[in-house]
Amino acid sequence: MSSMDDWWRELPMPDRQAAAAAGERQAQLTKPPGSLGRLEQLAIRLAAQQARSRPAVERVQVAVFAADHGVCAEGVSAFPQAVTVQMLQNFAHGGAAISVLARDLGANLEVINLGTVEACATRSMIRDESIGAGTGNIAREPAMSEAQLRQAMASGRAAANRAAANGAELFIGGEMGIGNTTTAAAVACALLDAEPETLIGRGTGVDDAGLKRKLAAVRRALLRHGETREPLAVLASLGGFEIAALAGAMLGCARHRLPVLVDGFIVSAAALAALRLQPALADWLHFSHRSDEAGHGRLLQALNAEPLLDLGMRLGEGSGAAVALPLLRAACVLHNSMATFAEAGVADGDTPDH
Amino acid sequence: MSSMDDWWRELPMPDRQAAAAAGERQAQLTKPPGSLGRLEQLAIRLAAQQARSRPAVERVQVAVFAADHGVCAEGVSAFPQAVTVQMLQNFAHGGAAISVLARDLGANLEVINLGTVEACATRSMIRDESIGAGTGNIAREPAMSEAQLRQAMASGRAAANRAAANGAELFIGGEMGIGNTTTAAAVACALLDAEPETLIGRGTGVDDAGLKRKLAAVRRALLRHGETREPLAVLASLGGFEIAALAGAMLGCARHRLPVLVDGFIVSAAALAALRLQPALADWLHFSHRSDEAGHGRLLQALNAEPLLDLGMRLGEGSGAAVALPLLRAACVLHNSMATFAEAGVADGDTPDH
Repeated sequence: MSSMDDWWRELPMPDRQAAAAAGERQAQLTKPPGSLGRLEQLAIRLAAQQARSRPAVERVQVAVFAADHGVCAEGVSAFPQAVTVQMLQNFAHGGAAISVLARDLGANLEVINLGTVEACATRSMIRDESIGAGTGNIAREPAMSEAQLRQAMASGRAAANRAAANGAELFIGGEMGIGNTTTAAAVACALLDAEPETLIGRGTGVDDAGLKRKLAAVRRALLRHGETREPLAVLASLGGFEIAALAGAMLGCARHRLPVLVDGFIVSAAALAALRLQPALADWLHFSHRSDEAGHGRLLQALNAEPLLDLGMRLGEGSGAAVALPLLRAACVLHNSMATFAEAGVADGDTPDH
Repeated sequence: MSSMDDWWRELPMPDRQAAAAAGERQAQLTKPPGSLGRLEQLAIRLAAQQARSRPAVERVQVAVFAADHGVCAEGVSAFPQAVTVQMLQNFAHGGAAISVLARDLGANLEVINLGTVEACATRSMIRDESIGAGTGNIAREPAMSEAQLRQAMASGRAAANRAAANGAELFIGGEMGIGNTTTAAAVACALLDAEPETLIGRGTGVDDAGLKRKLAAVRRALLRHGETREPLAVLASLGGFEIAALAGAMLGCARHRLPVLVDGFIVSAAALAALRLQPALADWLHFSHRSDEAGHGRLLQALNAEPLLDLGMRLGEGSGAAVALPLLRAACVLHNSMATFAEAGVADGDTPDH
């Protein structure tokens, strides 16, 4: 990326002709009109995004971005910071939730280390794109420099570029980073001018005392940050490497006309920042699930998003999106493979029996 | 089935030891406790039902029961009655939603014709277990005789027996029958002593005038039926062949310790009748989705059921259950294949960093 200005460049639009063709096809399938509910609109939106009347989401790229967060010094997490690297290794060895799901779904999983406090011994299966040994403690200092932000977003865009080059039909971004519900909440608070109470939750399961520390840390971070709502400034001041990378990845996907299935709280916060840069990004996003993280409802409301699932999940890693992927696949296979009224010789609803 | 009394015989119970073992395993997997939300409880329930600590729902039997309904004479449906047979043929030829989904999910699909008004030309792929040329018009006469009820429920149980014999790990019952949202609503009204307005909906998409006719038909049927709440009497008086078969199938599955994934409005009404016969059946049911059919919310409430999906579907055929199946599979694969904290060398949440 030669310049930050590039992120402001206009995004492509979904294909209206493909959407119209897909809508016509939906009306001819052997079912009462509208009886597949949201699956019908899913198929039509995917058709528009993929610019073909028969969409598919068989080839899926999952990119999990990991990084550490200086704000852990404030005692905001139930887990020690070493877990970020331990989980990176768990991803690489195939034992984490997202590893299991990606394998089961036949999705391609990529893990990108953007910078952890402890060294990551495992090298294979992990892309090392380290930007620094975690971010600064946002309660006391900016998370990262403008140069680091640029680097993180470029890592995200590069992941989108690789997905497109591999022929992916859908992109799922995931994240791992002890402390990142705190930084994601801070980013969302700044962008929405919202009270921290409305966006703070228990993350991996912090206790009441930890929740108080989390609230205090975000308050202090927002005071330090000041009034700026400019999304890149907010990401650099309050975000995390993986949050910035996810924003870059989503914008990069839209540029490739590659639909994105958004995971939970952290990815939604990244989506919010990316949407503030490019409101047209909304055309490329599908929201997978409502997380159990307390602030996600508020965040989804701000994004005007109605997710597909509400299963009380709050694991991150992209796991909620992976669990929702079969719904998109069902929408496509029904759209593509059901018989039409004419093909099946079935009378449609326009032939009343009375 | 030698006697109706057999339906009252006590059902087996899920295995508590398997549930406990599965719960212990969940606590050791590399994720914050509870972070997989409802997927954790799904895995534990399936473990208890299947009496093994590592449950699976790979081998799935889908049985679609079809029949016609005399109440169509009251003008209650947006589609002509001939569509029941046309859709049977569409199932056989692989073009219907449930055909497409079953194929895509690797599930075994069985279609059982319990009796239609028009003859069904297609024979292959369809089990002919015809009980009569559709039911009586419930607005004016009983739907079926006790002998016919016995036969319909036995067809359902036989389908459960075949599923168990084939080694199925999960059973999905579906239905097709123009007019069956009317009879299902009548059954639910009688069993719940509810006003028809609270359980009547537009079915395949009937217009306002049709909705009024539907309401009048159910009112008349309930008046004719009288006060009896005994579930077998209600099924014979107000039900349909496929509704009775579904009740029999679910009870049969429980007897084989085979979990059932319940579809939408019609199957839920059948489940209600079956539960009134055997409250312990509840231990064997998973509810897949909240249908867009207006009365389903009320029915789910009465069943104390919180379905997995709410996508505005209202197609029937078992399609909502089929769309939800991957969620059960995800619950199992995560439960069975994720690494434990010990295996992965990840610190768990009991090791605070402050």
